[in-house]
Amino acid sequence: MRIYDQLLQFPLFQGMSHDDLEIVAGHTRLGFTKVGAGKPVQMTGDACSQLYFLINGVIKIETFSEDRQYSVVEQMSAPYILQQEAIFGYFQRYTHDFTALTDANFITIDKEEVVRLAEEFLVFRLNLMNLYATQTQKLLGLPWRRCPQSLRERVVRFFVLHCVYPAGPKSFHILMTRLAEELNDSRLNVSRALNMLQGEGLLELHRGRIEIPQLERLLM
Amino acid sequence: MRIYDQLLQFPLFQGMSHDDLEIVAGHTRLGFTKVGAGKPVQMTGDACSQLYFLINGVIKIETFSEDRQYSVVEQMSAPYILQQEAIFGYFQRYTHDFTALTDANFITIDKEEVVRLAEEFLVFRLNLMNLYATQTQKLLGLPWRRCPQSLRERVVRFFVLHCVYPAGPKSFHILMTRLAEELNDSRLNVSRALNMLQGEGLLELHRGRIEIPQLERLLM
Repeated sequence: MRIYDQLLQFPLFQGMSHDDLEIVAGHTRLGFTKVGAGKPVQMTGDACSQLYFLINGVIKIETFSEDRQYSVVEQMSAPYILQQEAIFGYFQRYTHDFTALTDANFITIDKEEVVRLAEEFLVFRLNLMNLYATQTQKLLGLPWRRCPQSLRERVVRFFVLHCVYPAGPKSFHILMTRLAEELNDSRLNVSRALNMLQGEGLLELHRGRIEIPQLERLLM
Repeated sequence: MRIYDQLLQFPLFQGMSHDDLEIVAGHTRLGFTKVGAGKPVQMTGDACSQLYFLINGVIKIETFSEDRQYSVVEQMSAPYILQQEAIFGYFQRYTHDFTALTDANFITIDKEEVVRLAEEFLVFRLNLMNLYATQTQKLLGLPWRRCPQSLRERVVRFFVLHCVYPAGPKSFHILMTRLAEELNDSRLNVSRALNMLQGEGLLELHRGRIEIPQLERLLM
């Protein structure tokens, strides 16, 4: 696949003309990185000074709660950009652990090149602002939505709010007591709700771990 | 106050050189709008096609829950920009009611001019992306913070999550049963927690309304 076809897979470049993408591909300092299966890509706390575009392969994303008492593991396939909001703003560090699950290929673009692309290409500039603004709008709207009417819905909302992407397989490494505390409910009630979901084949309960084969099925 | 001094009050223009700000003030199509006390500025659902910079006066911001069953009223003084994230993204409409409390003066800048400023001025471009990214980073971090250990803290977190700005006077128009539902706790417990806060002079309870004189005092 030619480079501009690879870039076109990403919303950041969508809507750019063939000619503009040729210029981007030809005149932007692009890095090409390969990470072997099982190897780390970026870890929580690492400085983010480049955009990482996953163009091939599958990665694992693990996120830890602030007190490190629970974590969530997700999988993501190409095309995917690692935390595009981390390259600007007050906290320019990754807040997830990214590990290659298969051999993974990345195109990287330095921050200064991203800033320059935003200067030179109107469409890129609009794409960047629109992506950021959309993410903010979605997050700002959450507290105003109708609150869940049942514990089952509260459990599902907890899962969704703790995922980078609202579909695919997820592993929650969390104790039931902690989940109960987060939901302001009793451990017994939470256990019942989880067992109900397990009975419907929507998740599997293990010791200190909840496996969700497809998060999107919980939302139906 | 000269125009570039007025613009300099806003983070969006901070760090720009005197010369650049002269150019912005001289070459940007700026609108000047005055809204009389008591009059609406922008309402929920209105299209956002300009940035509104409040340069003088005090406005009221009212936000409604999605089901319109409760609302929150805040006050904001100049300098303040009305929902700078609403000018880009997937939902380019206001999600609050903005009303002038005193006579209020605004500078307005059309979206196309904002996009052009982001092209021409590196500092403006970086400011815009940094503001957006910071807002996203803060919101993305919320679910991962240690959950409140007491009902009192849950109540306070509810208040803070439903405010545009985490300080100043706020009125919550909400029934105690709804607040209890949102917090997954009993009406009686919520009533006790609120009465405790009232006893400490941190808020006042009225029928269907909670008055908070200074939100920041709840956070101490």
